[in-house]
Amino acid sequence: MSCSFGEKIKISVFGQSHSEAIGIVVDGIPAGIKLDMDKISRFMARRAPGKNAYSTKRKEADIPTIISGIVDGITCGAPLCAVIKNSDQHSKDYSKLKTLPRPSHSDFAAYVKHNGFNDIRGGGNFSGRMTAPLCFAGAVAMQILEEKGIRIGAHIEKIAGVKDSRFDPVNVNADLLKDVSSKEFPLIDDSVKEKILSKIEAARLDGDSVGGVIECAVTGLPAGLGEPMFDGVENVISRAVFAIPAIKGIEFGNGFDCADLRGSENNDDFIITDGKITAKTNNHGGILGGITSSMPVIFRVAVKPTPSISKPQMTVNLETMTQEELVIEGRHDPCIVPRAVPCIEAVTALALINLI
Amino acid sequence: MSCSFGEKIKISVFGQSHSEAIGIVVDGIPAGIKLDMDKISRFMARRAPGKNAYSTKRKEADIPTIISGIVDGITCGAPLCAVIKNSDQHSKDYSKLKTLPRPSHSDFAAYVKHNGFNDIRGGGNFSGRMTAPLCFAGAVAMQILEEKGIRIGAHIEKIAGVKDSRFDPVNVNADLLKDVSSKEFPLIDDSVKEKILSKIEAARLDGDSVGGVIECAVTGLPAGLGEPMFDGVENVISRAVFAIPAIKGIEFGNGFDCADLRGSENNDDFIITDGKITAKTNNHGGILGGITSSMPVIFRVAVKPTPSISKPQMTVNLETMTQEELVIEGRHDPCIVPRAVPCIEAVTALALINLI
Amino acid sequence: MSCSFGEKIKISVFGQSHSEAIGIVVDGIPAGIKLDMDKISRFMARRAPGKNAYSTKRKEADIPTIISGIVDGITCGAPLCAVIKNSDQHSKDYSKLKTLPRPSHSDFAAYVKHNGFNDIRGGGNFSGRMTAPLCFAGAVAMQILEEKGIRIGAHIEKIAGVKDSRFDPVNVNADLLKDVSSKEFPLIDDSVKEKILSKIEAARLDGDSVGGVIECAVTGLPAGLGEPMFDGVENVISRAVFAIPAIKGIEFGNGFDCADLRGSENNDDFIITDGKITAKTNNHGGILGGITSSMPVIFRVAVKPTPSISKPQMTVNLETMTQEELVIEGRHDPCIVPRAVPCIEAVTALALINLI
Amino acid sequence: MSCSFGEKIKISVFGQSHSEAIGIVVDGIPAGIKLDMDKISRFMARRAPGKNAYSTKRKEADIPTIISGIVDGITCGAPLCAVIKNSDQHSKDYSKLKTLPRPSHSDFAAYVKHNGFNDIRGGGNFSGRMTAPLCFAGAVAMQILEEKGIRIGAHIEKIAGVKDSRFDPVNVNADLLKDVSSKEFPLIDDSVKEKILSKIEAARLDGDSVGGVIECAVTGLPAGLGEPMFDGVENVISRAVFAIPAIKGIEFGNGFDCADLRGSENNDDFIITDGKITAKTNNHGGILGGITSSMPVIFRVAVKPTPSISKPQMTVNLETMTQEELVIEGRHDPCIVPRAVPCIEAVTALALINLI
Repeated sequence: MSCSFGEKIKISVFGQSHSEAIGIVVDGIPAGIKLDMDKISRFMARRAPGKNAYSTKRKEADIPTIISGIVDGITCGAPLCAVIKNSDQHSKDYSKLKTLPRPSHSDFAAYVKHNGFNDIRGGGNFSGRMTAPLCFAGAVAMQILEEKGIRIGAHIEKIAGVKDSRFDPVNVNADLLKDVSSKEFPLIDDSVKEKILSKIEAARLDGDSVGGVIECAVTGLPAGLGEPMFDGVENVISRAVFAIPAIKGIEFGNGFDCADLRGSENNDDFIITDGKITAKTNNHGGILGGITSSMPVIFRVAVKPTPSISKPQMTVNLETMTQEELVIEGRHDPCIVPRAVPCIEAVTALALINLI
Repeated sequence: MSCSFGEKIKISVFGQSHSEAIGIVVDGIPAGIKLDMDKISRFMARRAPGKNAYSTKRKEADIPTIISGIVDGITCGAPLCAVIKNSDQHSKDYSKLKTLPRPSHSDFAAYVKHNGFNDIRGGGNFSGRMTAPLCFAGAVAMQILEEKGIRIGAHIEKIAGVKDSRFDPVNVNADLLKDVSSKEFPLIDDSVKEKILSKIEAARLDGDSVGGVIECAVTGLPAGLGEPMFDGVENVISRAVFAIPAIKGIEFGNGFDCADLRGSENNDDFIITDGKITAKTNNHGGILGGITSSMPVIFRVAVKPTPSISKPQMTVNLETMTQEELVIEGRHDPCIVPRAVPCIEAVTALALINLI
Repeated sequence: MSCSFGEKIKISVFGQSHSEAIGIVVDGIPAGIKLDMDKISRFMARRAPGKNAYSTKRKEADIPTIISGIVDGITCGAPLCAVIKNSDQHSKDYSKLKTLPRPSHSDFAAYVKHNGFNDIRGGGNFSGRMTAPLCFAGAVAMQILEEKGIRIGAHIEKIAGVKDSRFDPVNVNADLLKDVSSKEFPLIDDSVKEKILSKIEAARLDGDSVGGVIECAVTGLPAGLGEPMFDGVENVISRAVFAIPAIKGIEFGNGFDCADLRGSENNDDFIITDGKITAKTNNHGGILGGITSSMPVIFRVAVKPTPSISKPQMTVNLETMTQEELVIEGRHDPCIVPRAVPCIEAVTALALINLI
Repeated sequence: MSCSFGEKIKISVFGQSHSEAIGIVVDGIPAGIKLDMDKISRFMARRAPGKNAYSTKRKEADIPTIISGIVDGITCGAPLCAVIKNSDQHSKDYSKLKTLPRPSHSDFAAYVKHNGFNDIRGGGNFSGRMTAPLCFAGAVAMQILEEKGIRIGAHIEKIAGVKDSRFDPVNVNADLLKDVSSKEFPLIDDSVKEKILSKIEAARLDGDSVGGVIECAVTGLPAGLGEPMFDGVENVISRAVFAIPAIKGIEFGNGFDCADLRGSENNDDFIITDGKITAKTNNHGGILGGITSSMPVIFRVAVKPTPSISKPQMTVNLETMTQEELVIEGRHDPCIVPRAVPCIEAVTALALINLI
């Protein structure tokens, strides 16, 4: 439990933000797959920190070292283990957090859960840094999915109230997903980029942060994938997505909007397109009864603003049990949304590979 | 997988809408618990069909027969198995659906998944009827949780665009949850009831349906429950909630609204209340880093309008592969939201009992 | 846990010896399989009690009623649930056992585990009767395996010191397995039957019981099945086999005898037979590194003598905490070995179906 | 599956005999445990190779590096990951094995399973070397068990036909287990040591190997542990034990001998000892109905002679599909039994910690 996921391809994540290293074991990868390490590195670079004004100043190369599971670059059927060094941790920034839990961060909950023995440095095992190994495993899973014609792509749907376009739920295709995903700042409509960046910069200058929404689409999934009830596509993707820190909501298809529609407005008629059964509209987001319908799978997730802000906040001193003002030091992202985009793609790949 | 859920208390659901019976095995219930069968029956009655204008006309008493797991009304440590007879099924209504999948229903996806051998009658294993055994197991789980001071309650937050009040995320308490849950039409603010009922009736008269939103709260959870990453409270509840047909979204705390806030607005300061650490606000919905914070857990789910409507719709004939108009016969709920309220409570109980 | 098994095809057993009924849910059976109910019934009859002098006098027809998972006799992809009525239980025979645990029976361990709330009647959930639903599920699994050319068969290798022949580990084949399995008293060499029966009868007349060894073989398994380490064929079969009450040991291939051999004697040279790679001998019992080698899988299990004997025995009164003589009433098998033979085949089928 | 085990404390093993390193993730260890690294190292040294005439000449220090899960030597609740370098691998010794599978080794089965992509060097993921990380995790589990008064110890019961004494199944205690386990050559009766060593040396000089039996006992287990059916103590221990390469059989209590006894001889009367309920004898090996009885748990496992021998053997060339003589090079244990003793203790600890 906890840091493990999957039945066919099972991952087990380890590490803390400031431990010697972090990493992942991926058990169940078939033998005989030539891993495209360049592609994996490029994917991981999309999440890596320290590259621009809107991400933390912590610099980590995030180069995975594969310790097992391959022979001459080809998977051998043994569990794949990749380790990523932690090299730029500043543990002393966190000394006072041992007694002063950061508002809306995991510190207090982790303190209670682990009787005060939790690793507070950088958020420990709850850190966003733990998504780096998820991105490694996700990149491996995506390579396998892409060989089956399945493509996953996500973009920033909204940051600080400024909206990008949404995917066309019927016509979104692999080329668009590839194109959007490869952008440094993944938007469908690049014209909103400057406005978003200025919102983030304004928050940063205020010692504050902003949240947003990410939209993800999957094309190429055949109809009939998923299990009813507890292992439907929605169940498995949502379970995986909430592994990413700061995610507070998920909706499939037209999601919460469907609540205001009538059945006759929300239902998607079946039609024949190019000799195959598809649907005229895709309010259902590619999933019916938990099972894929062959339409693109579409979902959106809400990302809360980074809880680590430098503005003074109120908290409780765990030793003295008195209220105290806290000013968080350390290096933090004024907006986590852009770096969360590949993470959402990665866990989606890890969820789907278990249903295929 | 599929119809099973849970590690400590594991459920296994069986049955189809028109099979001889439906039921559930609950493995892991501790020995020595005196089951309050009256309370279980009252809980299941909240979901049972055929009681009013806004639910299906199918009449099912939904009386569970316990076949194993108890001796003289007390659990004996063996798996608890309860069976519920199907008695009012009209299978002939479904004969034409074998070739004409209903739009936005599971029929087509199930047909592909099971190579045409799926039980189409009443939606088979994908039917909303499968939530009856979930409510049985949920009622048992709730009894155990309530003995630990944990109370779950949900209400209709919105139907057809008409809104109820929301729970106060800081002050919601067990008495309110008990009060709201016991209403036949569970609203916080009963003054909106007539308006909602008239919207449902209007849809029914049009041969149409309406959707809505359900809000659920849990009080009495101590801080420190849940596991990081894949078995956090959000992961487990969301996986469970998508087992209920027609759910298309879930959000915790202020959910999608948090995306538009700054960190300084969204963060919940820690304070001391009655000598205990709590938070001044509860935008985080009682969950930080996947772990309970001791604040009430709050979440909302989107319920799509019932896809089974009697208005003519377009579909594809699976035999002739031509488009065809479909008029669905049978007895359907013009609004599934009220009956889904106890189902949401039930799966929440089944999720939480595995984290305690 | 406990009464559940399997990942691809997951079973969940329920019931107690004297509950209203016992049964099983089988989740994951593919849709479209026409169940051969006659064959399933014949298989279950091999285990059914009350048929001869060496089994309990309790008479149970053991007719499974399928409540879900089939439409017109064909699996529909929904979980298969079968229920078997308990009809001939004599619960009053067990009243005194509530305080007087039977030596070498589960009574005392179950009493401690369940704080005295365990169902003592007939052994409750620990009863050998719980193997009836396992045989149902095993028969279904065997039907699927047989369609893939895989055949499972077991025989009495020894009872009360009297030995049958063993399977030829290289040349055992499906015809022999079918032939032996279909015997009422499954021996390879029928000439020892009378001697064994007289040993059992002698024990029965003494109010005593006898144990034995069962040998099981599986033919038609391709090479390459099983996972390394914890999900090898030996791991999975042994975990399954110890679900049968009274089993106290298992050995694969030449088993404990290999301990006395040198590598050069125990190793099985690879050879080519009919253009395929096989082994000249089969000391390894068809499993190397946990993975099938394409040779027949062979294993033997030790069955202890039925602990329920009518001879006076010493036990401790749980209420008074004094030692007390116990004379067990009720109807018991003087030798459980013959009825355990199909049970071993059944759990082997359930184990293997998860590896294919 | 495959290289993962456990529900409460879940391990995930990675590595191959000749990969850069091998290691293990242990997820679920409670926070706040001070790891006794000296004790862990001493335990691992019992398994480490290269120390004497009867083990392989491969020299590995087997020092585990802990990469995550601890802060200042104390567990922090995050998964514990330990990595062990491979430093003395001689991969070229294995070049010819790619086409010439060693008799009674996993090579052929792994080749088929992984379509020829398996890592053949040193047996890859199937190597006995993979028991090093198991010993690390087992040592951690033993530390936790010992704090609860539970002690595990094993000894060589037999090698090459020469027998040690057996544990007294009623009176075996923690002191004896500690004493036996700490011996370099773990025997109860040291007087047979020279005879055994000479048998091993004789085999070694012949380019051959010998097998044996290991007996393991666990004291201090309270009554009532284990689950019925598939998660009983026998099920879980046997599943774990077959993860150790070369194990071909397991028996609990008097095991296969019980098959020749009558119930009246095999049953263990309950008695009162020091005010507590125990049994007069312990033929049941401390387990009744899969549940602990409070008597010592006793079991024995059969260890086959090391299949890697330097005597010429017959095999099949996988490329040419012709029979060919094989002389195995590389460094191999003439007897694996002594080094397997701590491995059996380790997996027993990993099995039991999931039942507590």
